Amino acid sequence: MDRKWHFLGLGFVLGTTALCASFVGGMYFQHKDAKRRLQEIIQKDPYAYYVGPKIYEVFCFFENQANADHRMSQIMKYGFPGLDDLRLYSDFVLSYDRRNRVAHWVCEHLQVDNIHSNRGRRGRNPYQPDMSVPSNFRSELTDYRRSGFDRGHLAAAGNHHLQRNHCQDTFFLTNIAPQIGQGFNRGAWNNLERYVRNLVHRFGSVYVCTGPLYKPKQRSGGKLGVEYEMIGLNMVAVPTHFFKVIMVESTLQLGKPYMEGYVLPNASIPDNLPLRSFLCDIREIEHYAGLKFFDGLRRSTIFGSNYPSESQVFREFG
Amino acid sequence: MDRKWHFLGLGFVLGTTALCASFVGGMYFQHKDAKRRLQEIIQKDPYAYYVGPKIYEVFCFFENQANADHRMSQIMKYGFPGLDDLRLYSDFVLSYDRRNRVAHWVCEHLQVDNIHSNRGRRGRNPYQPDMSVPSNFRSELTDYRRSGFDRGHLAAAGNHHLQRNHCQDTFFLTNIAPQIGQGFNRGAWNNLERYVRNLVHRFGSVYVCTGPLYKPKQRSGGKLGVEYEMIGLNMVAVPTHFFKVIMVESTLQLGKPYMEGYVLPNASIPDNLPLRSFLCDIREIEHYAGLKFFDGLRRSTIFGSNYPSESQVFREFG
Repeated sequence: MDRKWHFLGLGFVLGTTALCASFVGGMYFQHKDAKRRLQEIIQKDPYAYYVGPKIYEVFCFFENQANADHRMSQIMKYGFPGLDDLRLYSDFVLSYDRRNRVAHWVCEHLQVDNIHSNRGRRGRNPYQPDMSVPSNFRSELTDYRRSGFDRGHLAAAGNHHLQRNHCQDTFFLTNIAPQIGQGFNRGAWNNLERYVRNLVHRFGSVYVCTGPLYKPKQRSGGKLGVEYEMIGLNMVAVPTHFFKVIMVESTLQLGKPYMEGYVLPNASIPDNLPLRSFLCDIREIEHYAGLKFFDGLRRSTIFGSNYPSESQVFREFG
Repeated sequence: MDRKWHFLGLGFVLGTTALCASFVGGMYFQHKDAKRRLQEIIQKDPYAYYVGPKIYEVFCFFENQANADHRMSQIMKYGFPGLDDLRLYSDFVLSYDRRNRVAHWVCEHLQVDNIHSNRGRRGRNPYQPDMSVPSNFRSELTDYRRSGFDRGHLAAAGNHHLQRNHCQDTFFLTNIAPQIGQGFNRGAWNNLERYVRNLVHRFGSVYVCTGPLYKPKQRSGGKLGVEYEMIGLNMVAVPTHFFKVIMVESTLQLGKPYMEGYVLPNASIPDNLPLRSFLCDIREIEHYAGLKFFDGLRRSTIFGSNYPSESQVFREFG
C-alpha cells in the first residue's frame, strides 16, 4: 500500500508541475496569438500604429517591443506631424485635410533603391480620385480642369520607382495640390524635388515631409488675415505656399541628423533665385501648418538656416 | 505491479485534465488582465478609444464587447466627426485645429442633470490657456485682449453644471473662439444655446456638436475664395460662421433620432430674426467643415430643414 501512494504522489507532483507550466503556456499562447493579430492591425491602420506603444504596454508580461519592420513604421519612425485623417499608401503616408480637399502633409522615407530602380517606371500613370475618401470631401479630376493650375505632386512621382504601384499611388488626387505651372511646378518646386533626390544619392537615407501652407498676410488696416482661392465644384483649396521639411539620417551610429525646411510661394519664381533663399526656420513652418515635424528627435539638431552655404552644411555634417 | 501502473495512470489522467484546464485558465487570466489594462487606456485616450473595436477583435477568444460606461464612450457614442488632435475634457470631447488655434469641433452629451444641478455653479471660472497644447499652437489670453472680439464658448458653460470641474473645463481657451459680442455671443448664439437646453428639458438626451466654419465666398472675378482674420501674436483665426449640429435621441426603443443643423454668421444678427431661419442642411455643414456628424446613425433620419415650423417637427417626432 505504501508504494501505491508513493506512485500516486509522484504522478501528482509531475502533474502539478505540468499544471503550472501549462498555465504559463496558456498565458503565453494567448499573448502570442493576440500579439500576432495586433501586429496585423498595426501594419494596416495608422491610428492603431499610433496608439501601438500604449497597447503594447498591455502585453508587457512577456515582451514589450513591437516588431517594426513594416513599411509604415519605417516611414513614420520619427512620429506623425499631425493626426487628421491618416492614410497609408504603398510607399508614403498622408494626412488628408477634408475641409480644403488637399493633404495636410505627406511623409516619405527615401533610399537609393526607391529612386534608382526601374521596375516601377514602366507605363503611363493616370491621375485619379481616391475613392476611399467620402464623396463629400473628395477632389475630382474636373476640379482641376480649366482651373489654370497644374496638378502638382506632394510626394514626387520620381521618388517612388521601386514597385509599379508605388509610383501609381502618387497619382491619387489626395497627393495632388493646385500649383502654378510655369515657374513653380515646372520650375523651383521641381528643382527642390531634384535636390532631395540628390541628397538621397549622397547620404542614403532621407525623410521628407511635404505639404501646403495657407499663410496669413497683412491686410488693409494693419490686420492679419488668411486668403486663398478655391477651385472646382468640390472647392479644392489653392495653397498660398508649399513646404518641404527634409531630414537626413546620419550614417554614423550616434551622429546627429540634419534638418532643413523650405517654404516656396505658390507663384512663378524667377529661375535665377537659388533654392537656399527659401530656407525657413522649421518652427515657423510648424506654426503656420499646425504640425510638428520629426518630434521623436531631440531638437538640438542642426537647422539648415544657421548655415550660410550648402557646402558649409555638408562640411560639418557626417 | 499491475496496481502500481494503474495508480500512476490514474494520477497522470487527473494531471492531464488539470493540465488542459490550467492551459485554458492561463489564457483566460492573460486575456482578462490585458483587457482590464486596455480598458484603462481606452478611457483616457480618444485615439485608443477610436481603434478600440479593432483591438477588441484581437481578444475575441473569450468575449468581444468593450465595457462602455465611461464618459467618453457616452459622449462619442455616435462616432467622431473628425480625428485631428482629439482631447478629452471632464464633460466634453474636443478636436483642436493647431493651424487656426481654434477647435475643429466640440461634442457634448446633455441630460437634465448636466444642466439642472447646482453643484458645479459655485464660484467664478477664469478663462485659461490649455497648457497641454504645445506653445507653438496655443492661444493665450493676450490674443483676445483688445481684439474687439468676445471669448465665445463652443461647449456652453451653462450645459456643464454637474460638477465644479465640468464647468471650469469649458473656460479653457481650446473651447473658446473669437466671436462678435453684440448681437452674436450675447444675442443669437446665446439664444441657440438656450434652445438646446430647452430641448434637453423636453426630451432628456441631446447630443450637440459645435464648431467654427471658414466659408468661402464669391470674390471679384467670380472666383471662390476663403478669407478670415487672425488676431493676436499667436494668430487665432476668427471664424466666418459657427455651426451647431443637434441630435435628439428618441425616447422610444426603436424610434428615430431627430437631427438639426444651424449655421450662424459671426456677425451682429438682428433680434427679430427667428432661429429657424438659420437651419442648414447637415451635409452642407459637413462639406464646409470637413467633418462627418453622427456617422454611426443611418442617414434616413429626419432633417430639421425639411420642416417649415418647429411645431410640425415635434408633432411628428417621438
